[in-house]
Amino acid sequence: MSLTTRDDLAALLKEIQPVNRQVMEQAQARLDNLTKPKGSLGELEVLARRICGIQATVRPDLGRKVILTFAADHGVAAEGVSSVPQDVTRQMVYNFLRGGAGVNVLARHVGAEVWVIDVGVAAEINEEGLLSRKVKPGTANLSQGPAMSIDEALQAIGVGVQTAREAINNGAGILGTGEMGIANTTPAAALFAALLDVRVEEITGRGTGIDDATLNHKIEVIKRGLAINKEHLHGSLATLAALGGFEIAAICGMILECARRRVAVVVDGFISSAGALVALQLAENVADYCFFSHMSAEQGHRIFFEKLGLSPILKLDMRLGEGTGAALAMGIIEAGVKIINEMATFAEAGVSA
Amino acid sequence: MSLTTRDDLAALLKEIQPVNRQVMEQAQARLDNLTKPKGSLGELEVLARRICGIQATVRPDLGRKVILTFAADHGVAAEGVSSVPQDVTRQMVYNFLRGGAGVNVLARHVGAEVWVIDVGVAAEINEEGLLSRKVKPGTANLSQGPAMSIDEALQAIGVGVQTAREAINNGAGILGTGEMGIANTTPAAALFAALLDVRVEEITGRGTGIDDATLNHKIEVIKRGLAINKEHLHGSLATLAALGGFEIAAICGMILECARRRVAVVVDGFISSAGALVALQLAENVADYCFFSHMSAEQGHRIFFEKLGLSPILKLDMRLGEGTGAALAMGIIEAGVKIINEMATFAEAGVSA
Repeated sequence: MSLTTRDDLAALLKEIQPVNRQVMEQAQARLDNLTKPKGSLGELEVLARRICGIQATVRPDLGRKVILTFAADHGVAAEGVSSVPQDVTRQMVYNFLRGGAGVNVLARHVGAEVWVIDVGVAAEINEEGLLSRKVKPGTANLSQGPAMSIDEALQAIGVGVQTAREAINNGAGILGTGEMGIANTTPAAALFAALLDVRVEEITGRGTGIDDATLNHKIEVIKRGLAINKEHLHGSLATLAALGGFEIAAICGMILECARRRVAVVVDGFISSAGALVALQLAENVADYCFFSHMSAEQGHRIFFEKLGLSPILKLDMRLGEGTGAALAMGIIEAGVKIINEMATFAEAGVSA
Repeated sequence: MSLTTRDDLAALLKEIQPVNRQVMEQAQARLDNLTKPKGSLGELEVLARRICGIQATVRPDLGRKVILTFAADHGVAAEGVSSVPQDVTRQMVYNFLRGGAGVNVLARHVGAEVWVIDVGVAAEINEEGLLSRKVKPGTANLSQGPAMSIDEALQAIGVGVQTAREAINNGAGILGTGEMGIANTTPAAALFAALLDVRVEEITGRGTGIDDATLNHKIEVIKRGLAINKEHLHGSLATLAALGGFEIAAICGMILECARRRVAVVVDGFISSAGALVALQLAENVADYCFFSHMSAEQGHRIFFEKLGLSPILKLDMRLGEGTGAALAMGIIEAGVKIINEMATFAEAGVSA
């Protein structure tokens, strides 16, 4: 399903169902019958149980593990909110395609693939392996008006939907979100501020590592963006369009498609969580399918988890994005799946229950 | 080196050197030159840097990953401190050897081997694959007097030293600790109480899941053990002998040998930490080589970390032991090692620094 109108989006949202709670109970019964004290594998059991509910089977199969790394540029980079030149987005796309980036290393480590999608890089890239699905070469400057039109936002969401669908149709049983886009902690923080009603000062962090003066400037830029876009900040979709980025919208779309198709999706870090937040607000059952990989060192991420009452799987003080946290957490989720599939029961092992 | 006397132990301790801090600085310089913002891989960088210091190279190689799971029984089980019958120690040894236990599943997941060592099970076990290095069929009841003599404790430490040596001589570049022994949270809690000077009520938890009445009884038993052994609780070795178990002593030994041979060792959970604590107290540089895998759900483990100012890699609410936490954390440590070995530098990738 490609997505071009609000009606298309509404139709997708309508198809998202809750996970199978009955199978989750059966999964817990199986976990309790494995050769270990009840509950002694903690979060691994919680993860396994939820995968069972998502797949509606107590013998889950993750299939291919695929990380979708969406790359896009941001008009707001012109405001000097990042310490890194915008061209690094393009440069890193090449790095991803050649396998040298952090996400490549960690994905290989856990046996996952990395798909790289240009959803809005501000440069022409013709390179084998790249999925070229550019909405536009970069968003408009959110501090001067809407970053995207509603149509552009829908188009970017559609790229996420379409790419997730391709992965799932080709055997992916778990997807991870990833992104690359210089300055994209700025739209992410702006979205959190608008959608979670938190103060800009609280939610805004140092991204790649800006100094105090640049941080203060970044906060001012976000405040200006919130003020100038005030009339657009009604509803999750309109807010996403006004303040977001193409890669953030694509992540929102891929999460929605995963939920629709009953496929687990691992949310990477701060920026991915902004896309996830929009998805969570668009349809109530989406959270059932989301696994939050880690607590980023980016200061606002803690507030996201607190506000939503969610817990990340890992806390490793990472703040790279790309899908690096999603990759590591996939390894932990797969460990849980192997526990329920491979451990002996008390009867099988001849161990006293 | 087999270990039979205090002098043998003293000689081993003398050989333990600090890690190479200069190489750690070189490792950080390399990490800072990889295509990511400085420090943005957080704990993965910290882990990689320390492995480099241990191996004295910025291109570390973990080699074979081996978990040593030591099994032993405890005289104090007769006091009814556990909800599980003592014979489960023997039953679980068979489960380990047949690959059906939690540690087998998680070790396979991260590409590690599990070596199973009988250092003191209260039953005859003749099964292929088992390393039979029994000191005695179970310790004495620590609530009635010393659990082990000094000689027995030295012998059990020696089993840990010897088994670690075999693994290292056969290519292991990282070892994980593991244990099985019904009732062994009791000696572990007793050791923490004595060696860290904490209240028994604070450090004692529910083990496999005992009820309130049994927990209160367990606390009383430990207090009785501390009182009756009072004259023996001077120095780490004598305290280990009086309150510990054969598997806890063996874990202490394997950690010491890893430190001597400059090999990383991943400490599993609550019980393994008791063995590690003795090792840390015996020689000052041992901590350099230890990676604490996770914070156990067993209540006293948090106190151990607080008292020693250490942080675990994972917090997944696990409390199974066996080496399960060590296995999972090995996967994270290996991720860090792959980051420093496999990520592209700014120059290699043509990315602006």
